[in-house]
This record gives sequence, structure tokens and C-alpha cells, in this order.
Amino acid sequence: MPTYKLTLAYDGTDYHGWQRQPAKRTIQGLLEEALAKISRKKIAVIGAGRTDAGAHAQGQVAHFSADLSLGLDELFRALNSLLPFDIRVVSVEEAEPGFQARKMAISKIYQYRIYNSPHLSPFLVRYVLQWETPLDVEKMIEGASLFIREADFSAFSSNRLLHPVRKVIRSEIKKKGDEIIYTVEANGFLRYMVRTMVAALLEIGKGKMKPEKIEELFQHKRRSALIPTAPARGLCLVEVKYSF
Amino acid sequence: MPTYKLTLAYDGTDYHGWQRQPAKRTIQGLLEEALAKISRKKIAVIGAGRTDAGAHAQGQVAHFSADLSLGLDELFRALNSLLPFDIRVVSVEEAEPGFQARKMAISKIYQYRIYNSPHLSPFLVRYVLQWETPLDVEKMIEGASLFIREADFSAFSSNRLLHPVRKVIRSEIKKKGDEIIYTVEANGFLRYMVRTMVAALLEIGKGKMKPEKIEELFQHKRRSALIPTAPARGLCLVEVKYSF
Repeated sequence: MPTYKLTLAYDGTDYHGWQRQPAKRTIQGLLEEALAKISRKKIAVIGAGRTDAGAHAQGQVAHFSADLSLGLDELFRALNSLLPFDIRVVSVEEAEPGFQARKMAISKIYQYRIYNSPHLSPFLVRYVLQWETPLDVEKMIEGASLFIREADFSAFSSNRLLHPVRKVIRSEIKKKGDEIIYTVEANGFLRYMVRTMVAALLEIGKGKMKPEKIEELFQHKRRSALIPTAPARGLCLVEVKYSF
Repeated sequence: MPTYKLTLAYDGTDYHGWQRQPAKRTIQGLLEEALAKISRKKIAVIGAGRTDAGAHAQGQVAHFSADLSLGLDELFRALNSLLPFDIRVVSVEEAEPGFQARKMAISKIYQYRIYNSPHLSPFLVRYVLQWETPLDVEKMIEGASLFIREADFSAFSSNRLLHPVRKVIRSEIKKKGDEIIYTVEANGFLRYMVRTMVAALLEIGKGKMKPEKIEELFQHKRRSALIPTAPARGLCLVEVKYSF
């Protein structure tokens, strides 16, 4: 039975995240519904990243295995015609046998957009967190660099796991006009990890926390009540990397 | 009583257009509601252009007259805090006495975005018309230039008016990656005028109509059944110009 690799982009604003949930509109749920219509079979779709409710994706990757009577191009068209306009299949490929979107990913790249101005365009509202008062970007850059490590990231997650060690290989802040863009790449992410790291960077940008505090949080290995979770709408899964 | 000039930007996707309508969410309606909350008075807001349901604005201009106890900066903040996030006040100014947003406008600029590719990003879906098969952009450029004139534009409107003469001073097509952007400036627009002109340009781009046909349509001075109305989502009121 062949395995298919899908690359997906979506505006997550109107969805309850990636993961299938009873009676809720989710990306995985709608993809599986579309595939059921195409194949008249129940087909499970596995995504590389379980994006949060309201978070977006430019390059989510998913796989499924099925015997389909359609060619790749037909499948691409059929899926896009059945999916809502704010979920788009970017590409459909036949994967190597045994391909698994989640388990085989070597890293994922997320971006978080902060719009640091009292004037926000209505065309950006769905994709950025607006912060009206000036943030100290230099300090945020300093803070971001402290996330680059292999460590227990429990202090930056909403739940405790048996294996909370993740390796962050890129963590950087760039300023582009009024936008502050945070890019982070890791071999995996704990639940709410990016959004908690962003919340910490915001505390630093506001001057409420020193960058060195991040070191301390890592040592606590526990979520601090001082760090909230940044809203999902600024978050986007940009790319999933594989070794092949 | 002082007159205020508002510049507004909005994502019109979720609204029934500019104009106040009973029991419908419209831009004018929500602005007037916000002003009523601020002033505890009924204040009529007049917009320069009555944008269609689903159409957007980057630079809509509106005015109202009222005795308010707030400064300009307070008014700016109060309006933006009361309005939904997809309607933003870009600026608030005190206008010259007698300023009228609609009557005094010397021209308006609209843009229409066509995304000419089978691959459409979910982040553009709300703001462009997607056309999957290749359009002949050269021919569309030729067609667009034929709209530059002072003439009876009834052939490109949904209704018949006593005074249907408008002066189009700019009408051009530009290609930017997969996007075809149509920009048109006129001293005024009839109902659905831009969307009908765009529909005609699309017919030309598809090869179903020759650019010269536009000349013929102008002579008919009547809406042709051959030309539909392009969807509102690609349309944006970019700027309103005044002589001062």
C-alpha cells in the first residue's frame, strides 16, 4: 500500500488546531473527511506537528497510506477542491515506503510574529500578536540566543513529560519594519513550548525580566507562574525537515 | 461643531459592505455604534466610497461632525478599542470646516488582485481572486488602457443612472510574481464599476474577448450579459484624494 506525503498550508484562525476532535473543525479532521470522500475508506492522516488552535502553517507535512485509484495530480486537485479555502495542499508526493511525517522529522521551524506598534493593519490581525508599546529588541535578541541548547524544556511547556529534553538549534529575533519575527528550530517541541518561549521574550522586551533569568528558568525545570503563554495567532509552522 | 476626518482600513470579508443596513454588520454601522458609545449621541458618519460587501479598504476616508470632549489621540484610541480588530482607524484629524469626505474627493484609487496560479496560499484567499489557468497579461494591459477616458460607464455598472459619466485617469495592470494587480483611479465610480471592468479584463485575459471589444461596449452604453461581476474579495479601496 503506497504512502503519500502531503505538504500543507493553512490559516488556522477558524480551526481548533491540527488534531482531530469530535464535533470540532480541525485540520486533521477535515483532511480525513476529504480523503474519505475521495477513497470511500477511513484513512488516518498523521501530521508532523500538532499545531495549536488558531496557529498557522506554511509547511506542515503529513502522511497517510492508502490504495487510491487517482494519480498524484488528481489527488492534489481533489483534495484542494474538497478542503476549505483556508486549508491548502501545497504538494502531494508518493513517499518512500515506511515514511512517517512525525517520527522521521529531524527538525521543525516555527515563526512567531509580533507587531510592535499602536497601528496595526487589519490585514495582519490574524497573523501577528500586536504589542503597542516599544519593546527592547536588543534584549530580546540576547534572550533568544539563550534558548539554543539541548536541555529539559519543562519550564517552557504546559505539561510535564517523561522525556522533556529537546534540542534547539536556532533561536533568533529579527526586526523588519514594525515587526519582530522570532524563528526557532528544534528537533521537537513540547506542548506550548514556542508560545511560552515567546512570552518569556516579551517579558524581556518589556523590561520586566532580564535575559539571564532564562538560565534560571532552565534550572528550575518547572513552569514559572510569571511566564504566560503568548496567543496562538502569531505562531506559524514554517517548515518540517527530513534527512532525505 | 468641529468636523473630523477619519482614515480607515478594513478587511471587509466578514462585513456587508460600508453602508449601514438594519440588522447587518457593516463598517459604517459599527463606526456609528462606536461613536454613539463614545459621545452618547447619534452621529452620522459619511464615507468617501461605499465599498461592497466583502471588499476591503486601506485608505477609506470618512467624516462626521460632533462636539466631543475627547482629544484627537483619545478619540483614535477609543474608536480602535471599540471597533473589531479587522476595522482599524488609521488616523483621526480635525478637518477644515465644511469638509465632506464624499463630495470633496477629487479621485479614488481602487486595486483588484488576481492570483493567477493553481497554487494559492491560504493567507491570500481573503484578498485575491484566484484564476488557475494562465491569463494573457499583455492583452489585459492593452484592454486596461482603453478604460482611460471620460465617458458614460453604464456598460460597466449594475444600474442605470441619470449621470453615468465618469473620468478614469489611470487604469493599469501590473504583474508581480503570480499576481496580476489592476489599479484604477477615477473621479468617481458607478455601482460595481471596478468589478465589472475587472470581469471584462478577465474575459480578455482568458482569450474570450478582444481588447477592442471594450470600445464597442462603451458605445452600447448598456451592460452586456457577457460580462459578469468579479467577486468582491479581490477589491480594495486604496486611497481617496482631495485637492488640499
